[in-house]
Amino acid sequence: MQVQAEDFFFSGLHLRGNTSNPVGSRVTPVFATQLPGLNTLGISMVRIDYAPWGQNPPHTHPRATEILTVIEGTLQVGFVTSNPDNRFITKVLQKGDVFVFPVGLVHFQRNIGNGYAVAVAALSSQNPGAITIANAVFGANPPIPGDILAKEFQVDKTVVDMLQAKF
Amino acid sequence: MQVQAEDFFFSGLHLRGNTSNPVGSRVTPVFATQLPGLNTLGISMVRIDYAPWGQNPPHTHPRATEILTVIEGTLQVGFVTSNPDNRFITKVLQKGDVFVFPVGLVHFQRNIGNGYAVAVAALSSQNPGAITIANAVFGANPPIPGDILAKEFQVDKTVVDMLQAKF
Amino acid sequence: MQVQAEDFFFSGLHLRGNTSNPVGSRVTPVFATQLPGLNTLGISMVRIDYAPWGQNPPHTHPRATEILTVIEGTLQVGFVTSNPDNRFITKVLQKGDVFVFPVGLVHFQRNIGNGYAVAVAALSSQNPGAITIANAVFGANPPIPGDILAKEFQVDKTVVDMLQAKF
Amino acid sequence: MQVQAEDFFFSGLHLRGNTSNPVGSRVTPVFATQLPGLNTLGISMVRIDYAPWGQNPPHTHPRATEILTVIEGTLQVGFVTSNPDNRFITKVLQKGDVFVFPVGLVHFQRNIGNGYAVAVAALSSQNPGAITIANAVFGANPPIPGDILAKEFQVDKTVVDMLQAKF
Amino acid sequence: MQVQAEDFFFSGLHLRGNTSNPVGSRVTPVFATQLPGLNTLGISMVRIDYAPWGQNPPHTHPRATEILTVIEGTLQVGFVTSNPDNRFITKVLQKGDVFVFPVGLVHFQRNIGNGYAVAVAALSSQNPGAITIANAVFGANPPIPGDILAKEFQVDKTVVDMLQAKF
Amino acid sequence: MQVQAEDFFFSGLHLRGNTSNPVGSRVTPVFATQLPGLNTLGISMVRIDYAPWGQNPPHTHPRATEILTVIEGTLQVGFVTSNPDNRFITKVLQKGDVFVFPVGLVHFQRNIGNGYAVAVAALSSQNPGAITIANAVFGANPPIPGDILAKEFQVDKTVVDMLQAKF
Repeated sequence: MQVQAEDFFFSGLHLRGNTSNPVGSRVTPVFATQLPGLNTLGISMVRIDYAPWGQNPPHTHPRATEILTVIEGTLQVGFVTSNPDNRFITKVLQKGDVFVFPVGLVHFQRNIGNGYAVAVAALSSQNPGAITIANAVFGANPPIPGDILAKEFQVDKTVVDMLQAKF
Repeated sequence: MQVQAEDFFFSGLHLRGNTSNPVGSRVTPVFATQLPGLNTLGISMVRIDYAPWGQNPPHTHPRATEILTVIEGTLQVGFVTSNPDNRFITKVLQKGDVFVFPVGLVHFQRNIGNGYAVAVAALSSQNPGAITIANAVFGANPPIPGDILAKEFQVDKTVVDMLQAKF
Repeated sequence: MQVQAEDFFFSGLHLRGNTSNPVGSRVTPVFATQLPGLNTLGISMVRIDYAPWGQNPPHTHPRATEILTVIEGTLQVGFVTSNPDNRFITKVLQKGDVFVFPVGLVHFQRNIGNGYAVAVAALSSQNPGAITIANAVFGANPPIPGDILAKEFQVDKTVVDMLQAKF
Repeated sequence: MQVQAEDFFFSGLHLRGNTSNPVGSRVTPVFATQLPGLNTLGISMVRIDYAPWGQNPPHTHPRATEILTVIEGTLQVGFVTSNPDNRFITKVLQKGDVFVFPVGLVHFQRNIGNGYAVAVAALSSQNPGAITIANAVFGANPPIPGDILAKEFQVDKTVVDMLQAKF
Repeated sequence: MQVQAEDFFFSGLHLRGNTSNPVGSRVTPVFATQLPGLNTLGISMVRIDYAPWGQNPPHTHPRATEILTVIEGTLQVGFVTSNPDNRFITKVLQKGDVFVFPVGLVHFQRNIGNGYAVAVAALSSQNPGAITIANAVFGANPPIPGDILAKEFQVDKTVVDMLQAKF
Repeated sequence: MQVQAEDFFFSGLHLRGNTSNPVGSRVTPVFATQLPGLNTLGISMVRIDYAPWGQNPPHTHPRATEILTVIEGTLQVGFVTSNPDNRFITKVLQKGDVFVFPVGLVHFQRNIGNGYAVAVAALSSQNPGAITIANAVFGANPPIPGDILAKEFQVDKTVVDMLQAKF
């Protein structure tokens, strides 16, 4: 089986992703699924588009650290450290700024400008995975039992029902 | 520097942890902080106690897979797969049953019996970390901006304010 | 292929293993062979039962560190460091005590009480392997040439013949 | 020691690098030296600027795979496989195209347009290193003995002398 | 701190090691202790000398696979697989033959010729460790309790006493 | 599938490799292709023969550190550090001397004696790869565009044409 340039190539990060969704952002992944030549090489890349005031909501990558650079616009980024401190580390990034989200930590970016924003980020796995907190917790399929979430979030189960209905 | 038995020893998993807290559970860790001989060896252990109907609420370990066995009682356990499926995988465990929570995924256990329950779990890192979702998201210090969470969870910011006030 | 709870589940550590054998102990493994969901995740677990004064005899795990906790009874545990020191590190463990056996070192546990003892241990590989020294050395199949063992153990070959006859 | 946002932040990829040099390109690194928070996390990033028809000349990264995306302009990229095939794999990339250079292989990019070009690339190490072939071979300090290079490149030593004088 | 050639250099494998000892062999190690430049690089080397009919007795490397080649003489080599098979895999090697001993398995070499034999072996760690079975089991300091060994080897404790007296 | 001694065995390093070629050396590899039992074990070995004044020309291993020992003859060895220093580290080795070439760096050996020389080297991968600089740069198939090499080496394209014609 001969090596082909196509195995190491992916086209498609030039287009603005469709941000017409509740969070106002779109991640276009280039993982081993999209680019098979990445297999075993331990790295991948994404383009992230943000509508004005859109956000890539709090999420984790279970198998990767992320390094992000801003291509266009202004982003507020942040991550939260582990128990027991849960320290919120945040920074406003301009075009050309770089920020690191250590493996497995909850992190987000949001566009704090009135125009579109764009970032490129790389991840330390060819198959990093992504877990959007709200979707994993309130949108799991089938749902996580509501009383578990009510106790974790210390709210009435009707609040959990309301949240689960949204995802 | 001579090797000492004390460097490889930890005493303290025989006692029931104090579960008098809102979630009704207690994790007693044996990580490299508690047992320095674990350094570089890539493994650690915890005891988890559950009051009747207590839970170890949805959380992740950013740097470890977890394998758990039930020592006493009956636990419902579960984890949620990554985006886009967010499949909820769940099982009821009796004494002596074993379950695996793959690295970085959101998972929980709860005691579904009227007595105390106890589990022992091992983690594939000497420093696995733990991120309780509710605490990282709503209890970060300083807080994550409320409008970010309102948009992620698709709720009014007053709901977020209420949640942040609890952590 | 959809993820199934059964792939991450193993039942069977609740039963006392059969310790009616010359060493008076039984290891019940939960490795990737028994629990396929462990594959690639770098961790596994065992239950170890000890008859009164039974032992899990000197052995090594070629691909894993082990962390053990006592569930019931009193165990003397120990390991020996590498050449040239061959230091014997030993400790008596009560219920709830934890001990670490670093990767590849010769180690053992024995029940020093008059009742049964039980331990749970985790290993830093989904396929750790186990090499019981006596069986590997004197019970290999076909046998290791007797004169090699006679020279290593500095005994007459008749002693080796006697030992090889037992395994 | 408290975690600080500054430890995870680097500013400076917004500026076009100075490409006034013989090869007409400039690499601006964001490695652990520039961004200490990257330590142990196994990833880093660079911005690469290309003057019109400038090139990032044939080089290797001894400790990293590279994934590159074009931000502006048109690049021809290529890498050469190992002995014995030495296959040259090449591709023309437009804005938004992505290409992978597997760990340790000789690779290059050149701007094949009349304007400036810009790329962002990530590397699978916080300290990937870079070895520009011409500089390592003909510009080493002190020089590699000329007769070694003459024999490798199958040229007269005067050709090597001429090449070594340039670096 | 400038890189020095001396950091990557070790002199001393040209001399025949002193094999005047009970097993008739000598291992001369080139580990990170002897050659600091090996640190973090995951490889090391040894020279092994064998008197006529000498042996490098059954031992394990807790942190490395070994690949050996015969420089002079004829060696019988072997290793034993893990429980439960304990299969003895053996081969006679002539000058220039190569053999692999997988990580952590019990293995040996012996000179089956009337002259000296020499081998060079490499190990997949800069700090592989070595555990000579007889020394670890019967020569530990302080000794492993004799009744533990008596039970493992299924011999009378007087046999163990005799063995422990030799190491 | 039963383990066989043949899976761990390779015969053929006893013969002097054919050094009748322009560089006057021959590498005989024992990688996973030649010795399947090496798979996943992260180590391999080579024999290198050198005609009088022959050389193993400047090359890199993209996935391995190399540790070399001289079996016969006198070798000058060297490697070059990464950008920006490109320091040339060199040493003359006699029989029994050992030298390390860190992963991915350009290195070479040459016989500086009037007889044959022989070395044995080990590599920290079962599939280390090898990239001979001259062949990868001037002998790629199809060729790297000549103007790219002319610019890198700062020579007229006719010099590159001449060099490419040789490989």
